[in-house]
Order: sequence, then C-alpha cells, then structure tokens
Amino acid sequence: MTTIPNPKPPSELLEVAKIIEIELDSCLKEQHLPPHLAEAASYAVVNGGKRVRPALALLCCEAVGGTRKQAMHAAVAVELIHCFSLVHDDLPSIDNDDLRRGKPTLHIKSGEAMAVLAGDLLLPVAFTQLISEEYTCNQQAKLTQLLAKATSDMVIGQVYDTLGGLPEHLEPLQQLEEIHKNKTGALIQCACTMGAVCGNAPEQEFEAIRTFGSAIGLMFQIVDDLIDLQGTTEQVGKATGKDEEAGKTTYPGTIGVEASRVAVQELQNQAENALQLLKFNTETLASLNLWMAHRSR
Amino acid sequence: MTTIPNPKPPSELLEVAKIIEIELDSCLKEQHLPPHLAEAASYAVVNGGKRVRPALALLCCEAVGGTRKQAMHAAVAVELIHCFSLVHDDLPSIDNDDLRRGKPTLHIKSGEAMAVLAGDLLLPVAFTQLISEEYTCNQQAKLTQLLAKATSDMVIGQVYDTLGGLPEHLEPLQQLEEIHKNKTGALIQCACTMGAVCGNAPEQEFEAIRTFGSAIGLMFQIVDDLIDLQGTTEQVGKATGKDEEAGKTTYPGTIGVEASRVAVQELQNQAENALQLLKFNTETLASLNLWMAHRSR
Repeated sequence: MTTIPNPKPPSELLEVAKIIEIELDSCLKEQHLPPHLAEAASYAVVNGGKRVRPALALLCCEAVGGTRKQAMHAAVAVELIHCFSLVHDDLPSIDNDDLRRGKPTLHIKSGEAMAVLAGDLLLPVAFTQLISEEYTCNQQAKLTQLLAKATSDMVIGQVYDTLGGLPEHLEPLQQLEEIHKNKTGALIQCACTMGAVCGNAPEQEFEAIRTFGSAIGLMFQIVDDLIDLQGTTEQVGKATGKDEEAGKTTYPGTIGVEASRVAVQELQNQAENALQLLKFNTETLASLNLWMAHRSR
Repeated sequence: MTTIPNPKPPSELLEVAKIIEIELDSCLKEQHLPPHLAEAASYAVVNGGKRVRPALALLCCEAVGGTRKQAMHAAVAVELIHCFSLVHDDLPSIDNDDLRRGKPTLHIKSGEAMAVLAGDLLLPVAFTQLISEEYTCNQQAKLTQLLAKATSDMVIGQVYDTLGGLPEHLEPLQQLEEIHKNKTGALIQCACTMGAVCGNAPEQEFEAIRTFGSAIGLMFQIVDDLIDLQGTTEQVGKATGKDEEAGKTTYPGTIGVEASRVAVQELQNQAENALQLLKFNTETLASLNLWMAHRSR
C-alpha cells in the first residue's frame, strides 16, 4: 500500500473548522451560563479541535444535495457530544489523561467536579440544537434518534474499553471491532447520517452515507491506535503509548501494525466506493477520507 | 402553622410509583445494554424511588384534561434525568455520598468509572423518550426544550452548590433561592410543565401549572434542607446533617428553622392557589402538595 507521510488536512476541513468554532462559541454564549461554568464549557469545546465530525455532517449534507448551512445545528450538536465524551473519558476514574490537544485536560485545569458537571451540561445543549425551526418535525425526530443512539453506543464503547465485559463468544478481533465501532465509529457515522437527514437524502443515498460513515468511523479509531503506538506526544498533542501502558486492546496490538494498515486501506476503499453512489459534490469528502486514513495526529 | 408529623404519601403516589417503576425497567431493557452496564443503570434507576417527578408529570397532564398515559414517556424521561443527576451528584468529586435510599451509591457498588458512564447513558435515553410517536411534532419540540433547559439549569444549580460562584449582587437568601431553584426546582417544575404539554394545556392552564411547579419545586428543596437537619439517617435513607458538615448553604442555616417552615407553608399555599385555576382533577395534586410540604423523608 502507498503511505503518504503526514499529509495536511484538506484546506476545506480547516475552513469548516473555523466556522464551526464560531458556531460552537456562540451556541455556548446563548446558554447564559455562570462565568466559571461558561469558562469550563468553553475550554472543553472552543479549543481548536480538528472538527472532523461537524465537517462530515456539513459535507455529507452537501453530498446529498443540501447546503452546508442546513446541517449546521446538527454539526454543532455532534461536536458538543464529542467534546462531552472527551471531558468525561479523560477523568481520573476513566482514562486518567492529563493532556488533551496539547493542553491540560479540564479536570486538571478546573477540578474534577467541574469537569463532570461541564461535561454533563453539554448533553442537553446538544439535544436542543436538533429542535431547530430549520428542521421539519420528521428531521427533528430522526436527528434526535440518531444522536441519542450514537451517544448511548459511545458510552457502551467506553464501558467496554475501560471495564471490559465484551461478549465472550466473540473472537479477539471481533471484540476489538465492537469496542471501536461503539466508542468512536458510532458518533462519526452519526455525523454523516445526520448530515444526510439535514439534506433530505433519499433512502438509497442515506444508505450510501451510512456505509461511508461506518467505514471511516472504524478506520478513524484504527488510525488512532496506530498514532498512539507510533507518534510522539509532541506530534499528537496528548500522551502516546498510553494504550499499551494501560493494557488496552488495540488493532496493532491484536493483528500487528502491517495488518492494521491493510485494514485502514480496505476501509478507505469501502468509504470511497460508497461515495460513488452519491450524486452531488463528494470531492471534499473524498479528500477528507484520504486524510483520515493517513493522518499522523 | 399546623404541623402534620410524618404524613403518609398519598396512596395514588404509591400506585403511580409502581407503574413508573415498571415503565423505567422496560425502558432500560429496550436499550439492550451489556450486562454490567444494564445492571448499573438498573441499580441507579429501578430502585424504589419516591417518583415524585413522574407522578407530577402524570397528574399535571390529567389536571389539564389529558390522560395519565399520555404523559408516560415524559414521566420516564424526567425520572431518568433525575436518576442521572443523583448518580453524578453522589460522586466522590462532587457530594461524595456513600448512601442513597438506604443503599450504597452506584460508585460504591460498581466503581467510579461505571457511575460516571452509567449516569451519562441515562441522558440520551431520556431524550429519545420524548420523540415518541404519541406526541405531535410540536409537543416533541416543546418537551425537548423544557427537559433540556431544566437539565442544564440543574447542572448550573449543582455547580453553584458545589463550587459557589453565585452572582455577588444577590443577598444570601436570594443566592440560596438561586441554588435551590436551579438544583431542584427546575426539574420538578419541568415535570409539571411537561405533563401540561402532554395534555395539550391551553396557555392559561399551562401558566397555572408552571406557577404550581415553581412553588412546589422550591418548597421541595427547603423541606429537604429541614429533613437533612432534623431527620435521622434511618428515617431518611441517606446521610443526614451532611449539609451543615459540608458547610452548605441551607434555608434553616440562613433564615432559621421556623422561618423556613413559614416559607414552606407560603409556597404550599401558592401551589394550592395555582391549582384553583385548573378545570380537571386536581385532588391528587393537592394531596401530593400537602404531603410534599410535610414529608419527613
């Protein structure tokens, strides 16, 4: 397989990230929170993240014939859920991470109580985004169902990852897939399908987006595993080699580095094939797919 | 004022509690969670709580001319949010409580990671309840907005209670009201107004329910403060005297026991007056109001 070392994210991801950053900031400001809670929530959310999930929501909406703007509320919602999950996953009782995106994690900065509560706060804020007047009743219901299911799957994935308890009849690789698909894949796929709902995708295109999201969702976490194994803290912005240290099951740890890379390539191809079924602009999604497969942070 | 010592809860509250217990149980079973997470969620939710909030939702729906059944999904949702808040509030980093309803708290039983994650899980499950086909689009949107706002207010209240940061221009009693209204009042009021939405209350009746909910919401927490001060652990089912120990601001601590009792009586009257504006069965709500003012646990 071809390896593209340290590719840059597509320029449109950076553009979308800027817009999302502004939307997230104004969404939090609208909540009129007490200053210390506002500061903690903003620290957790308005922090220059890569914004892969909201970008996927906007671009998938476009790929089924909608406008990016139509998917903005869903994009904000999915990123709020992602940010909430990072804050809680970093907690001492869960992953015990001190560093996130190169900065102290929220519980290090503002204490554990604030981290638990600011994380909690992001959930209701996320769900109200979906009850926007811009969406039809049908869209509101579908978006809420998709986001709620993905959030719940994400929690299940984190429970598996932290506390085990996976179905014992599964082979090690299947168990690992179960963790990754829930912990990371579900919300990435949800970003894509929510975008499709915002763009009023017909059934067949919705399914193509679902397949696309499923492939890149799993792929994203395998790449994360590879980065954790091979990156340096400086490159990655968080502690690396932690998976191995924590005895966590990873793709490279289970099937080796080379086979993990092959799996990434296969998922990238699956995602690319799914894009062929769409009628509108899929170019940016394709370059996002390429970057997600080869990113080094 | 008349004191009614240790009154029994109205028999209809006990009946409703039984039904809600079954609904909560089946709602969790429908999530098909991994066994350990299912067990933790069930421990947090299906635990013989008083079910004041869901009872209020059902009875307020009835009081505006709806059926109790119409409010069932909203009732389940509000109780799930209440249960989530108890689990997180009990955490070592927040209230650090070992005992809840006479049993070990979830983090004592299943560990802190599971308590954080099982608490998190209840939020998306709650919000999907509101996207029930039994509700019109308009109802779904209103219910989601009400529940999200109350959840966010509740988190704000808990932040104030645990970490301070109240607006400094407020007098001590106003500050205390601000804590109580957010921490406890908002969700109790929300249970009432969600019931009214489920019963398609006309504007004026909705406002009466809102006033009723606001009064009993604040009253509930003042009574809790009095119970914490005066009850024994055995009666209450959780550690008592903890507020004082933790240096928490309480009504009796701020204005004294007698003035707190007067405040309870006033709020009970306010709630009773609001009920006069409703056209349908308010008898059970009235007896619930009476019990809530005089309960000893």
